[in-house]
Amino acid sequence: MALSRFNPPAAERSPGAAASSDTVADIETWVDVLGAPATSPPGLVGALVAWSQALGREHVLTSLNTIDRFSRCTLPCGTRAAAVLRPANTADVQQVVRIATQYGVPIHPISRGKNWGYGDACAMTDGQTIVDLSRMNAIREVNSELAYAVVEPGVTQGELSSFLREQELPLWLDVTGAGPDASIVGNTLERGFGHTPYGDHFAHTCGLEVVLPEGDLMNTGFGAFASAKAGRVFPWGVGPWLDGLFTQSNLGVVTALGLSLLRAPEQCLAFAFSVKDESCLGEIVERLRELRLHDVVRSSVHIANDLRVISGQRQYPWDMAAGATPLPDSVRSALRQEASVGAWNVMGALYGPKPLVAAARQLVRRAFAPVARVLFFDERRLKLAQTILNWLSRAGVARQLAAKAAAVRSPFEMLRGIPSASHLRGAAWRSRTPASAEGTNPGDCGLIWVSPVLPATRAACDEVLPLVTRILTEHQFEPLLTLTTVNARALCCVVSICYDRDDEAERHRAAACYDELFTALATRGYLPYRGGLQTMSKLADLQPDSAATMARIKAALDPQRILSPGRYEF
Amino acid sequence: MALSRFNPPAAERSPGAAASSDTVADIETWVDVLGAPATSPPGLVGALVAWSQALGREHVLTSLNTIDRFSRCTLPCGTRAAAVLRPANTADVQQVVRIATQYGVPIHPISRGKNWGYGDACAMTDGQTIVDLSRMNAIREVNSELAYAVVEPGVTQGELSSFLREQELPLWLDVTGAGPDASIVGNTLERGFGHTPYGDHFAHTCGLEVVLPEGDLMNTGFGAFASAKAGRVFPWGVGPWLDGLFTQSNLGVVTALGLSLLRAPEQCLAFAFSVKDESCLGEIVERLRELRLHDVVRSSVHIANDLRVISGQRQYPWDMAAGATPLPDSVRSALRQEASVGAWNVMGALYGPKPLVAAARQLVRRAFAPVARVLFFDERRLKLAQTILNWLSRAGVARQLAAKAAAVRSPFEMLRGIPSASHLRGAAWRSRTPASAEGTNPGDCGLIWVSPVLPATRAACDEVLPLVTRILTEHQFEPLLTLTTVNARALCCVVSICYDRDDEAERHRAAACYDELFTALATRGYLPYRGGLQTMSKLADLQPDSAATMARIKAALDPQRILSPGRYEF
Repeated sequence: MALSRFNPPAAERSPGAAASSDTVADIETWVDVLGAPATSPPGLVGALVAWSQALGREHVLTSLNTIDRFSRCTLPCGTRAAAVLRPANTADVQQVVRIATQYGVPIHPISRGKNWGYGDACAMTDGQTIVDLSRMNAIREVNSELAYAVVEPGVTQGELSSFLREQELPLWLDVTGAGPDASIVGNTLERGFGHTPYGDHFAHTCGLEVVLPEGDLMNTGFGAFASAKAGRVFPWGVGPWLDGLFTQSNLGVVTALGLSLLRAPEQCLAFAFSVKDESCLGEIVERLRELRLHDVVRSSVHIANDLRVISGQRQYPWDMAAGATPLPDSVRSALRQEASVGAWNVMGALYGPKPLVAAARQLVRRAFAPVARVLFFDERRLKLAQTILNWLSRAGVARQLAAKAAAVRSPFEMLRGIPSASHLRGAAWRSRTPASAEGTNPGDCGLIWVSPVLPATRAACDEVLPLVTRILTEHQFEPLLTLTTVNARALCCVVSICYDRDDEAERHRAAACYDELFTALATRGYLPYRGGLQTMSKLADLQPDSAATMARIKAALDPQRILSPGRYEF
Repeated sequence: MALSRFNPPAAERSPGAAASSDTVADIETWVDVLGAPATSPPGLVGALVAWSQALGREHVLTSLNTIDRFSRCTLPCGTRAAAVLRPANTADVQQVVRIATQYGVPIHPISRGKNWGYGDACAMTDGQTIVDLSRMNAIREVNSELAYAVVEPGVTQGELSSFLREQELPLWLDVTGAGPDASIVGNTLERGFGHTPYGDHFAHTCGLEVVLPEGDLMNTGFGAFASAKAGRVFPWGVGPWLDGLFTQSNLGVVTALGLSLLRAPEQCLAFAFSVKDESCLGEIVERLRELRLHDVVRSSVHIANDLRVISGQRQYPWDMAAGATPLPDSVRSALRQEASVGAWNVMGALYGPKPLVAAARQLVRRAFAPVARVLFFDERRLKLAQTILNWLSRAGVARQLAAKAAAVRSPFEMLRGIPSASHLRGAAWRSRTPASAEGTNPGDCGLIWVSPVLPATRAACDEVLPLVTRILTEHQFEPLLTLTTVNARALCCVVSICYDRDDEAERHRAAACYDELFTALATRGYLPYRGGLQTMSKLADLQPDSAATMARIKAALDPQRILSPGRYEF
């Protein structure tokens, strides 16, 4: 990664930011506060005037404060926006892109900007204008009979999840670990994944509303036809299926998305187990794959290593490690024992009518019997355990156990479609600033995610994991790893490179570590399922044989190249 | 449908066909036997010369015999090819499209040409050159550990299914009713569906190899990157997902396709039941939807009406009906009783480890208890029943029962991934020529399929089925219907308009019936999941809002418009 300009640490950002605000009187003043001319495209001033006429001036933000906020990102190197637009609806978005095309000014749409570990709200390059879709936050439809919803980009997973519970609908949303404030549309378009049988989010969409770069509005699938009845229940429609074009791409602005919801199951039975021996992973993966191929387990199963679990509960033990990095083995052992976690910690769930879940439970228990004893728990059992443990804890005993039971609560909630902010805590792992009690804002932390996809085999694990561990260690990072069965045949390994963003040397090391890790994995055939700002040029260097086709399609749909130039272009 | 030129009945085809053959000496002779100049594009002769140099003359077919054969189709109105090319491999296909582009000559690729009911091997217009990919019949890879295969377009479902059984691999292929000779790739690209939990074929692909209209070769998903390890296990790859573009389209020639195979289950337990009362359908659909939403039933379930079942066993009872059409109610009742079928006949299966199947069985039985008694049977039980019944039958009793048990055999085989030709018999329903003992070649029959997609609700059934029945009856056809739960939320209704192609008036009525049925359904929002030759212009007339985007993409990838012009362009 060329670290030509670092994303500045919090303390150094926005000198004099307080001096300007978004309520300045006129465009000329805005122009004064814009970034260096080098990063502001020539047509920008004209576009800003037109946008402010179209959206209302209060929805065209240019203050340093705002720009600073949207330029923050967890990567070592972010980018700086020229301005931020806040359209209210699809018609606004059409006007925004038309003006961008007219003035040849690049824009970068975001849903909620919570693309942690991959670039947050940042565009690929400085000087693009962010189109913040958070005002488009309507839950347009929830169909309980057919179990789907239609949401706009501003709808967060917290909002839809709460809505379903408040309305007492028999529907669950699959959520990710990105916290309650993350956008459903944003995550789905990045092809994120969650925890339930609907964990592969893109696979559970049905129909997109898209504003194209020149302002045309399009619906995909049967939605392309007026009055279609099956537009939200049958994804493919008739004719070429275009939806895939608008995921991980820069070909259109998705302004609404249909998604399938899980019919609330009679039972959600979580299962969990740990192994002490690191070398058991291959065995676990082989058994999990067969359970998924046989449809005994139908949900994403998450496997986290010791440090990834621990990083969700506490920050780096700077004191125990006497300030050294990476984490000394002895300290790691002590932490592992203290938190009573295994080398690998597995968690998933069984969903469905009780008799089916009971049958699957026996099969899961038996499948892992040679490896570990599997613990099963559902809502009822978890509540009971917590009540007892809280009582014991008040009585002065079993405090540690009570804390552990409490720690299980939030991952369990996620298995049931209730998002939690607690998984974001890991982002602050290497920060020397104590994390606040209210929770972690990853945007303030140093975090790079590297997410190679592996065939779900022992051989792939045996090749990838030692490699990842070696490279992290060489750059003074310790492995914080999860592996998720994103489908029956593949694992997504998410490596967290957590670094202290206030330590410049460490920022550099994090960037270098990413570079080496990416290259080592990619040359061995382990490509990432998703990329950050720094990933796109690396993927282009690998010369995928779809590059020429993609370039033609981009030129056909966005001849002025106004939409997120550089993003997923390779 | 404009019936400007009928697909001629068998007897009238190929006057003097025997006079020419594919082994003629030189291009000039070929040119002599080409169709009318009006339908032969100007560059055709040059292209034929170039193709014959590239492929070898024996793989450029122009005889009337061959053209006749490839122009046969089950629709009232087919199209006539200019020539037929038979490339052997991907490099050949690249040469074929490059030459087509060079000479501006339209080509139409087919896999095996068994697109029954929608146009068979025919291009959209006369004068296109068919690119017959049947020589590309390699099973490139079967991975037993990760349960997938990679096949070329010429591989039939019969071939892969047999291969898996011969090699004794623990893998099953999902098959359709299109018979053992139908192509896997062809069906998947048309987004066909089968019977197992992998019934939605396109949803179970992983990675395409595509020759683009100007001759470039491209792999989709991770396959776009050299040495990718997860290209056949994780469909999305990284960056925009292009696969959907190459289904139901004319944007590229798919020369290989990765498909997920079902891990052979410990048990495949079929379930079946019938209801006498036609009005029960809504109730069945509602219960099926909930079973699928709760993941109790994970496979496609087929619901056939009485006549669709009967049409698989016998032809139209011209004698009983005294030559009248549509089928008189009294004859229908008699046939129903004779075949002991219900008004609706439901068949599906449960797949998995025995304890899971046992639990699901109880839930299925209970769910349908208010509607019907569900019959369950697996391989073991079916064999036993057949043995007993055959024995009784030889002893002179229970002959009808023995025949019925035998009739269950082929649908049961399909539930287990073994294709059968028996479902094609229905195509000959209205033919006055007795069907041959060797089985029906649908290409000799009159058949139009109309396949609207419905939300899986009682309300949709109540709206669609009376409408379909009324329109069929008004055109002197009787309803031959199936409904399949293509996913948890949608039904695909396949209406068979079977007609006697040797009866010109009936051919006209069939075409008129299709027109009225399509329009009645589409205006009510029930669009087809798939279209025939006659469907494309109708879909275009409905002005889907993706039309402009598709036109841009087509122009970008195929500027000369050489690939299947008109096909799925709307």
